[in-house]
Amino acid sequence: MRANASIESLSTARAQDAALRERARRVIPGGMFGHMNVASLPANYPQFFEAAEGCRLRDADGRHFIDFMCAYGPMIVGYRNPQVDEAALRQVSLGDLMTGPSARMVELAERLVALLPHADWALFQKNGTDATTLCVTIARAATGRRKVLVARNAYHGAAPWCTPYPSGVTAEDRTHLVYFDYNDLHSLQQAFESVRGDVAAVIVSAFKHDFGRDQQLPSAEFAQGVRQLCDAHQAALVLDDVRAGFRLDLRGSWEPLGVRPDLSAWSKAIANGYPLAFVSGNDAYREAATQVYATGSFWCGSVAMAAAMATLDVLAQHDAVAHMQRMGERLRAGLQSQAQRHGVGIRQSGPAQMPQVLFDDDPSFERGMLFTQVALEHGVYLHPRHNMFLSLAHTPADIDEALQATDLALGAVAARFGAGAATAGA
Amino acid sequence: MRANASIESLSTARAQDAALRERARRVIPGGMFGHMNVASLPANYPQFFEAAEGCRLRDADGRHFIDFMCAYGPMIVGYRNPQVDEAALRQVSLGDLMTGPSARMVELAERLVALLPHADWALFQKNGTDATTLCVTIARAATGRRKVLVARNAYHGAAPWCTPYPSGVTAEDRTHLVYFDYNDLHSLQQAFESVRGDVAAVIVSAFKHDFGRDQQLPSAEFAQGVRQLCDAHQAALVLDDVRAGFRLDLRGSWEPLGVRPDLSAWSKAIANGYPLAFVSGNDAYREAATQVYATGSFWCGSVAMAAAMATLDVLAQHDAVAHMQRMGERLRAGLQSQAQRHGVGIRQSGPAQMPQVLFDDDPSFERGMLFTQVALEHGVYLHPRHNMFLSLAHTPADIDEALQATDLALGAVAARFGAGAATAGA
Repeated sequence: MRANASIESLSTARAQDAALRERARRVIPGGMFGHMNVASLPANYPQFFEAAEGCRLRDADGRHFIDFMCAYGPMIVGYRNPQVDEAALRQVSLGDLMTGPSARMVELAERLVALLPHADWALFQKNGTDATTLCVTIARAATGRRKVLVARNAYHGAAPWCTPYPSGVTAEDRTHLVYFDYNDLHSLQQAFESVRGDVAAVIVSAFKHDFGRDQQLPSAEFAQGVRQLCDAHQAALVLDDVRAGFRLDLRGSWEPLGVRPDLSAWSKAIANGYPLAFVSGNDAYREAATQVYATGSFWCGSVAMAAAMATLDVLAQHDAVAHMQRMGERLRAGLQSQAQRHGVGIRQSGPAQMPQVLFDDDPSFERGMLFTQVALEHGVYLHPRHNMFLSLAHTPADIDEALQATDLALGAVAARFGAGAATAGA
Repeated sequence: MRANASIESLSTARAQDAALRERARRVIPGGMFGHMNVASLPANYPQFFEAAEGCRLRDADGRHFIDFMCAYGPMIVGYRNPQVDEAALRQVSLGDLMTGPSARMVELAERLVALLPHADWALFQKNGTDATTLCVTIARAATGRRKVLVARNAYHGAAPWCTPYPSGVTAEDRTHLVYFDYNDLHSLQQAFESVRGDVAAVIVSAFKHDFGRDQQLPSAEFAQGVRQLCDAHQAALVLDDVRAGFRLDLRGSWEPLGVRPDLSAWSKAIANGYPLAFVSGNDAYREAATQVYATGSFWCGSVAMAAAMATLDVLAQHDAVAHMQRMGERLRAGLQSQAQRHGVGIRQSGPAQMPQVLFDDDPSFERGMLFTQVALEHGVYLHPRHNMFLSLAHTPADIDEALQATDLALGAVAARFGAGAATAGA
């Protein structure tokens, strides 16, 4: 009786989400699509949210969570950041999409060119995939070549040429891709040699953030080697900064390594969730960028551009990168000490502000699933396989509150799977 | 002196636009990109707008225009429609992009499935090109085949597989396209036969709206023949309703012809300018739609979905399709009588609410350019080569005011090029 009552109260407590899922199942294939589909997350994860503010989510059933996914990256200065929303609403009261751009487009392009040392120009889109695809297309137009060198398992978008899942993709969509291994210059060199004279571009993520794997920062040697090989072969260095952009360095993620791309793809965090993407590039690729026909119905909308400028303001005013890094380190240190105390082996990898937390001896993510499930029960939204995201809205108090939940969650992992040797963080 | 003074006052009057263009030239390749680039329009066309309301635009220099482009389609119930903006702002105050969708996604999918007789489900994106590409990908996943039959000169988006301009495109991007002629069943049959057994889909626009050409409505025989050929060959009928959607028939543009697509691509007008696209499909393609990985950072944003539902409300409440048609017919009749009076041969084609106006004996569009230039001088924003758009915000008074400008503009064409035999409208 107790068990049944508990199950019932649990399911009643999540009645709205269940009802929405049932309705969605009828009118949306599979009930949900894409990267926000929670089908492979623990069963207590909500699919539908009602509201968000700062770093907190409220689901359809009124449960609150500290969010460490930040809408998978776009939220960077807090949900419903007043400064960003005010700029957006001011633009709504003038006009969003009109029969041409507004001055906001020029102002934002100027801001980006001033901010990004590699950039002489910018072009605007709506999806990260638009930006990566456009970089590749511009590189082909500029070089007159066809091949694109891509790191194995890297995610560069969901178009047929780059989607990680093959349904509906033809062999020809991938004909001109050649693979290398991230952080392995030798493999990149071999890739260049294998199609010598026909390499249009190398496309490379800011760091290695493959799904379900330990993250890896690029070594300086690798980043500089990519630049040298691109120069030697007169190919474009395309930096995919869609996921990491504005979280590692406002000037571009490889700037601290002293490496400047020819073309860079951006999206996600640029406008704190307002839909926007852009390509930045240097003068060598300006003419090709002029020739390529790149357009979309909403690409000149002014509201997202106004939101982007306000987001850049807030990021700079609050030294947001340093803040996100500090908050990420606070979380990382807390998790590390908790894991050691519970005798649970975890691996924390990548930049602290975009943390990946994986468990030792966890090939099918059972430990990670239990960990995130228990954390969610206690009000913290984590991801067992995808890298997570800190934001300017995460305060030390939020991190400490989250760590109370992770302590219980790591305790649950230790209780279920037994304590083992704890390993050091990355 | 007079001439110089006049040139100076003209250029002073457009100083803001000129200054913005000069700034844009430095930080945006070519100063502007895509379909909203006015480089090929008459020189007096503004590139930058400051504000919009109803069917009126205000450019960066404070000039006002009655707009017959409607942001190239997205604006359908008036710029800054209060009902739509209120729904959007209400959602902003809850949350736009969160770490999952809100109930708005389910509600909108239910609305669309109820509205569109062919549809059993819907999936959401941000660009029209996302929607057309996804239709093709789903069709390939469902059929296990590769070939896509496309009408010559039809526009289905700006991705490498479909962009009308070849810069940066590889041969392999088009390997699996086979061309036929719109409204020519025989050519479609030949296309099917040429790749028999390997046809995944026929993609076809709601009507023929090729750039710079007379428009053509589909004959019932053609539309029904497309359906029959797709059925006979077990290929998907993909209706590209991105441009025409919600202007010809709220149930889908081919519903009056009694022809239902398997998959349909939508964007532009669905949310009155808020960025949104969607694919609708029937149950035969549901499983394939579940398998295809389709996603984008902003695809689950709730604000555009809330705006879409309000747009559908407004469209239905005001019988907007009939209104747009009446306004289009009023414009068409006025232009026709003016052209006859001035002895200028024009051809008006396509549905009245999406009019194309071309001039006889005008292979390089000189007449069209002069016509639109003079109309613009008198406060009316037309297009010499692209189809135009009516909206719910266009009133009889707006049309009549616009016709005063077109009368002067047609007079100028007659004066410059001489009067000839006037031809009948389409």
